[in-house]
Amino acid sequence: MLTPEMEAILEPLRRNVQEQGNLVRKLKADGAPELDVKRAVAELKVRKKVLEDKELELTPTSAVFDRSKMEDLIKRRFFYDQSFAIYGGITGQFDFGPMGCALKTNMLNLWRQFFVMEEQMLEVDCSILTPEPVLKASGHVDRFADFMVKDTKTGECFRLDHLIKNHLEKLGSDGAATPELKKECQDTITRLDGMTKDEMGAILRKYDMTAPLSGNDLSDPMEFNLMFGTQIGPTGLIKGFLRPETAQGIFVNFKRLLEFNHGKLPFAAAQIGNAFRNEISPRTGLIRVREFTMAEIEHFCDPNEKSHKKFSTVKDIKILLYSACDQMDGKSPKEVQLGEAVATGLVANETLGYFIGRIYSYLTWIGIDPKRLRFRQHMNNEMAHYATDCWDAEILTSYGWIECVGCADRSAYDLTQHSEATGLKLVAEKRLPSPKTVNTVEAVPNKPILGKAFKKEAKIITDKLSALSLDEVSKLADSLDKEGEFTVNAQGIDFKLTKEMVSVKSGSKVVHVEEITPCVIEPSFGIGRIMYSLLEHVFNVREADEQRCYFSFPASIAPIKCSVLPLSNKPDFVPFLSKIGSSLTQMGISYKVDDSSGSIGRRYARTDEIGVPFGITVDFDTLKTPHTVTLRERDSMKQVRMPIEDVAGVINDLSIRRVTWDDVLSKYPIFEQQEQ
Amino acid sequence: MLTPEMEAILEPLRRNVQEQGNLVRKLKADGAPELDVKRAVAELKVRKKVLEDKELELTPTSAVFDRSKMEDLIKRRFFYDQSFAIYGGITGQFDFGPMGCALKTNMLNLWRQFFVMEEQMLEVDCSILTPEPVLKASGHVDRFADFMVKDTKTGECFRLDHLIKNHLEKLGSDGAATPELKKECQDTITRLDGMTKDEMGAILRKYDMTAPLSGNDLSDPMEFNLMFGTQIGPTGLIKGFLRPETAQGIFVNFKRLLEFNHGKLPFAAAQIGNAFRNEISPRTGLIRVREFTMAEIEHFCDPNEKSHKKFSTVKDIKILLYSACDQMDGKSPKEVQLGEAVATGLVANETLGYFIGRIYSYLTWIGIDPKRLRFRQHMNNEMAHYATDCWDAEILTSYGWIECVGCADRSAYDLTQHSEATGLKLVAEKRLPSPKTVNTVEAVPNKPILGKAFKKEAKIITDKLSALSLDEVSKLADSLDKEGEFTVNAQGIDFKLTKEMVSVKSGSKVVHVEEITPCVIEPSFGIGRIMYSLLEHVFNVREADEQRCYFSFPASIAPIKCSVLPLSNKPDFVPFLSKIGSSLTQMGISYKVDDSSGSIGRRYARTDEIGVPFGITVDFDTLKTPHTVTLRERDSMKQVRMPIEDVAGVINDLSIRRVTWDDVLSKYPIFEQQEQ
Repeated sequence: MLTPEMEAILEPLRRNVQEQGNLVRKLKADGAPELDVKRAVAELKVRKKVLEDKELELTPTSAVFDRSKMEDLIKRRFFYDQSFAIYGGITGQFDFGPMGCALKTNMLNLWRQFFVMEEQMLEVDCSILTPEPVLKASGHVDRFADFMVKDTKTGECFRLDHLIKNHLEKLGSDGAATPELKKECQDTITRLDGMTKDEMGAILRKYDMTAPLSGNDLSDPMEFNLMFGTQIGPTGLIKGFLRPETAQGIFVNFKRLLEFNHGKLPFAAAQIGNAFRNEISPRTGLIRVREFTMAEIEHFCDPNEKSHKKFSTVKDIKILLYSACDQMDGKSPKEVQLGEAVATGLVANETLGYFIGRIYSYLTWIGIDPKRLRFRQHMNNEMAHYATDCWDAEILTSYGWIECVGCADRSAYDLTQHSEATGLKLVAEKRLPSPKTVNTVEAVPNKPILGKAFKKEAKIITDKLSALSLDEVSKLADSLDKEGEFTVNAQGIDFKLTKEMVSVKSGSKVVHVEEITPCVIEPSFGIGRIMYSLLEHVFNVREADEQRCYFSFPASIAPIKCSVLPLSNKPDFVPFLSKIGSSLTQMGISYKVDDSSGSIGRRYARTDEIGVPFGITVDFDTLKTPHTVTLRERDSMKQVRMPIEDVAGVINDLSIRRVTWDDVLSKYPIFEQQEQ
Repeated sequence: MLTPEMEAILEPLRRNVQEQGNLVRKLKADGAPELDVKRAVAELKVRKKVLEDKELELTPTSAVFDRSKMEDLIKRRFFYDQSFAIYGGITGQFDFGPMGCALKTNMLNLWRQFFVMEEQMLEVDCSILTPEPVLKASGHVDRFADFMVKDTKTGECFRLDHLIKNHLEKLGSDGAATPELKKECQDTITRLDGMTKDEMGAILRKYDMTAPLSGNDLSDPMEFNLMFGTQIGPTGLIKGFLRPETAQGIFVNFKRLLEFNHGKLPFAAAQIGNAFRNEISPRTGLIRVREFTMAEIEHFCDPNEKSHKKFSTVKDIKILLYSACDQMDGKSPKEVQLGEAVATGLVANETLGYFIGRIYSYLTWIGIDPKRLRFRQHMNNEMAHYATDCWDAEILTSYGWIECVGCADRSAYDLTQHSEATGLKLVAEKRLPSPKTVNTVEAVPNKPILGKAFKKEAKIITDKLSALSLDEVSKLADSLDKEGEFTVNAQGIDFKLTKEMVSVKSGSKVVHVEEITPCVIEPSFGIGRIMYSLLEHVFNVREADEQRCYFSFPASIAPIKCSVLPLSNKPDFVPFLSKIGSSLTQMGISYKVDDSSGSIGRRYARTDEIGVPFGITVDFDTLKTPHTVTLRERDSMKQVRMPIEDVAGVINDLSIRRVTWDDVLSKYPIFEQQEQ
């Protein structure tokens, strides 16, 4: 929380942002040239960044966080590590070991329970290899690219924005740099995001940059498409890509899914799966990788009806919202009740609000610190070309605020694109309040003649003709009238049609339904980023001993729920260990027996490291009737003593949050013994 | 089961096989030339196939099975369907819809419970994109290929064995074909499997084959590698492939996993994930596809110690085993108790036997018919070059016996290959019964000189030197002595070392452990193939009405466990529907409310189709106190009446097999009402 002293420091920075925000608004209102607006927005971002950096500096939430200590633990206990390390490794690829894999599985199972089961979503599992036309239609072939430059001698590639940033940071921090140069470098760095290829190229030349290390000349900037290409089938002629997102698999199945839902809107489809991006220079661990797991939802609804029947279940949740408006005014994110946010129009509609609430609940349930979670609205100029509104769930880590879940209103963009590319209608029918009579014009193909002229391709043409809009049919009628022919484009091919091949029929009919292209609201989760953020949020060091680190995972997602520790390897303990083991397995509780010779304290420390929330100890008292064991909780390190037959049930109840640890403490006698 | 009449028909065919089997054995025993053995084995396979075809013909287990009816249901209710169909589709790729996806998820969750949890395996999740050197070492770059030919004019590709088979089938079935020609065609077709490129090329020329449809000339046969290639990173220089199996991800992580297991053998690692094969001409639905989900286990153990501590838990299971020996003798598979199979040496060791038992239990638990499941041992000549023994779980479908799970003893092949390719030791330490003194020779690098001479590569050399075997160090010593230099190959590069760079130190030391390269036993599951076989095994048609099809999935894997049907859309029913819904959600039971206007009978038929095992009906009696509902079971179509608060718990108990439907029938009153 900010104190008045801090606010006093921030005040001039806030004013700076606000001034610039107002300028941007004015330029837009006046219809100023696009370039002017862009420049003003870039400056706005610079000022926002300065403000945010100062804010983070004043409120160091992670002061005690030691990243290298955590990374050492992650590697040592094999949560994840670089792929193919024995072959030298490949950057941007990671293998999840037993702990990381179990954590990921638990996160995904909980996700499935939270979203798919709870909302009865239609989950699908689609192909990764995607033929080019699909990704051409979605815009990825043309636009999914970063800028890079090459070392003209060695061929080494550099991501252009990273290269410029590193160069200017070095230049600006040089002792000999004038204050003017320092400021210039800083400003340029902050403006990089969103610059065009030519603008970056100009900077490259202005500062006469060369390749790092080698000092060789650099090529002109070029676009590098981030998709991995391959060929499908043996001919080498079907070009394909590894999907860069899972969403397109849902869109191309829209008709099947709508039918599955009996033709009714709204409905949501979901997909969990891997996606691939050939990053130019991946870094920062799990945050930017070449292969990653996503969980995406596409909620299809009537564009004019975005209320949500379950909105009332989230309306009371208070969430840190950072609106575009507040960002332009230099203000901080605000804690707002979702109900109020939708009522005031801050969040555009109930469906968007509902998903923001559910995303918040999911993230905090798995262990993300709500104080380090905010939803930031995209400013107009940040949004993808297809989106009409977008809120990102951002999580604060030692790398700054990281975008982990996007929640965008994509409008009808994707379905429209695929419909245009395939000539098929991707629409839903909506019942009209009352039937109405409409004028119709229809392109009627003369199938025998078309068939003769175009053979197999005739089908493509008739499909296209039946999908023409009213407007397009009028054009066709006109053209046939005046020119005697009309050229129609279907699946990328031009077909010249004559009067003999197609005629236009007008008439009228009574319709009960209208066709609408649904609007899509898309919550999109980056599982690796969420996992990394979670690891930071639950990483702890014992106050008494800074060598003892542990992850305080909530029991519901802990990779292993329970350890079983015999006090010694006395054979008398064995039957009790088996009994406990089989009762845990029966309840589906993952556990690990540690019968190594270390002291109990050392063994606890080892299970703490991997975040095991509960530990059962079998000791000499266990041998006496009634047979009892101790149960220890990781965070408090407190122990209770309970009958052996209770323990699996208690751990299960704790894991699904049916009871709390405090409940257990009040029910069973405390067991007092120092850990050593 | 075979009747004496059937056996009489089969007898001469069995004798045919046995004669040839004996010939093969004799040739091997006599050390006959390899080509002769190969020819004899090919003939053996022909005779085996004739026997098996006749056996299947005599015992048609799937007489009533109508594949097109099932495929229609699969498509109509979107279990799965062709990917990218709106773009024309790609063969060999499928998208799983809500029903198929839920079925797959349930199968995988059960797999994880059955294998990973129960056996405390180390589950990993490794990268799909794999750099070339890894797959070079594993043998895939050189050997993972099929033969194909190209139409010399159009470039169309054909899988060579398919092309020959189709051509000869047509030729042989021509009315004008002589009996000799018919037999020749049939024989050649059966011999195709396992033929070399040249042998197939000769057949191509002998019958003067041309491209189907076009009639154009065909190219010479060529090898086509089945891996999808791509480039990792922006330079285009790092060649990579989509993994063709998940196993290699485990092998390259062997050291981390061994360490995770505190250096101890045995342990098993597991991985569930997608793999990719660029089939030349995929067909037969889910059985041969380009993108598929595997679940693989690599059990690492001491090559001299393959007993299994849990073998006693499977020893009483009776399984249909089809030994290599019985195959060569023209006999049928035999039902054998696993304990006996291992005791008699039919199955080589307990670990292999244990996994066969566990695979059997998993497959039958999810619903595979045990009468249509057999384990077939590979004959010597069938085995992959690295395997020492292999049993495939084969499932009988309308396509014949389909290999669905492989269970191979891969010996130390993979670890040895990766060790040689990387120069790193991939071994485990085994405690000796008593310490012993051994002579040592050791290659001692002179690091400063090496560093000066080889810069960054010096590390590769020192790694390699420390991994040299005793034998290799002797060679090095010899060479340094005689030639004054020695060439060592590490990571594919030759390095010339001089006396100054490396010396050889002899001595002796007391050792307590020896290093062993573990042996690997690999159960490998093809999830799509299992799913397809399962769908066939549980597909049923109601006797009373052949239009009513249904899948009788066991409740534990049914995509949806329960339907909730209000008798009508009377508003009074709504609170009861919500109450049931939330009690089901709380127990994690997937359900679907069908409040459409169809009759109850029609609505049941719809939920039967997708294999929903239980149906709850809310009717007018539900409104009275005490509130009750009816519960219907899919296969028997019987119903009982029970208190509304019992129903979720009962379904849960049925799903985890805590109670049977008969238990429910005896506890609650039967509800008699015709479905209409």
